[in-house]
Amino acid sequence: MTELNQHIASAFDRDLEGIQARIMKMGGLVEEAIISAAIALEKRDEELAQKVREGDKAIDAMDESLNEEAARVIALRAPIASDLRVVLSVMRMSANLERIGDLSKNMAKRTSVLSQMQQIGGTAASLRRMAREVELMLKDALDAYIQRDEALALDVIERDRDVDQMYNTLFREFLTFMLEDPRNITACMHLHFIAKNIERMGDHVTSISEQVVFLVTGQMPTEARVKHDRTSTDFRLSSEFTQSDKD
Amino acid sequence: MTELNQHIASAFDRDLEGIQARIMKMGGLVEEAIISAAIALEKRDEELAQKVREGDKAIDAMDESLNEEAARVIALRAPIASDLRVVLSVMRMSANLERIGDLSKNMAKRTSVLSQMQQIGGTAASLRRMAREVELMLKDALDAYIQRDEALALDVIERDRDVDQMYNTLFREFLTFMLEDPRNITACMHLHFIAKNIERMGDHVTSISEQVVFLVTGQMPTEARVKHDRTSTDFRLSSEFTQSDKD
Repeated sequence: MTELNQHIASAFDRDLEGIQARIMKMGGLVEEAIISAAIALEKRDEELAQKVREGDKAIDAMDESLNEEAARVIALRAPIASDLRVVLSVMRMSANLERIGDLSKNMAKRTSVLSQMQQIGGTAASLRRMAREVELMLKDALDAYIQRDEALALDVIERDRDVDQMYNTLFREFLTFMLEDPRNITACMHLHFIAKNIERMGDHVTSISEQVVFLVTGQMPTEARVKHDRTSTDFRLSSEFTQSDKD
Repeated sequence: MTELNQHIASAFDRDLEGIQARIMKMGGLVEEAIISAAIALEKRDEELAQKVREGDKAIDAMDESLNEEAARVIALRAPIASDLRVVLSVMRMSANLERIGDLSKNMAKRTSVLSQMQQIGGTAASLRRMAREVELMLKDALDAYIQRDEALALDVIERDRDVDQMYNTLFREFLTFMLEDPRNITACMHLHFIAKNIERMGDHVTSISEQVVFLVTGQMPTEARVKHDRTSTDFRLSSEFTQSDKD
């Protein structure tokens, strides 16, 4: 390697470190948004919900600036092959984090509306547990990214099935509450949306983990994804929605 | 301008034309996916639904290759300022189109499940009309992009309110059907998800239109967006979900 190449390589590495530090910071904000939104819902804490909604602007701004920074690095360093892959994967992870932030904000938005209605059994606590699981998955996915830890990333992808399972259980509960008393219908539809949003957050965390596997191995963990997807047409699950919204 | 600069500029323009042609082709496929998914649902045409599901792979692949091509252009031409903005906006439009494709696929996935259940009034036809409206909006948004037509883009953003209104009306219908007969609850929840998905497609078309306004004026049409968003906390709408899921 010539001295010039070395110089270019390390400048690229420095840029990349900066971008990675930012995505970790963004990930931390998103983790906080998930769990705060769920706690706000459970405690009917409208102030905390408002904080989540306000905080989403910072997350959106970070996504914006990460994209610009990534474009700047591509323009300046013209990375090829695996280096380009790293930059593009950061852009995708940022998009996934931004979406999780939006979903947390949407959950927070329903808090005021739901606070006006009667509680539906222990479902708010179940939603908080589900959100907590997704938050832990996100934490591990980000760790897996930094450590380039394929095993941990695959573990996160596997755990998304638990989240799907929690969603299934909740869906059945909502149906029961609606059948029991039609006055529960409106609240249950809101809560069901929230459950679906959390389930969708899990999908975005899975996407992040897939990016990690791709970075380490050069291949997407398609096998696992395909198997996962097949259940969506399983008629034994047809009255539930679990797998129907995989992208 | 030196001859060399001219040469570089036109090479960039050629690259850009190629990318733009691709995004238009992708847009065409997505338009078809929206309307086919809605027709498949109304006619209970499982074969057509399957075609939509299969077709989503092509849309995903186009998003993938558009991103790679955009990165290649940034790396090769190192565009600055407004040129870089064009390339980044194409990447964002591609992401929006890819999401609309996913939402169409999700709609198609529910067709088999819904075909097993009784029809819920004329709601499938209403969903098809709503999807048709979104498809026309997308067509205009893409035209607005190619023509750099700010007025048309703003018109599309305005029309998204009609889609929200259609969603509101449908939501009220589903509630009525559920209250009327609890056996309608499962089908209504599926149909409600579809309505929400179409409403969300409208949001993605709005994002595309906003990118057009940004390209032409250098500013996002934030005013309109903020006003739009305020209604989400309007308690007169609290039993409906219309605005709650704006990102």
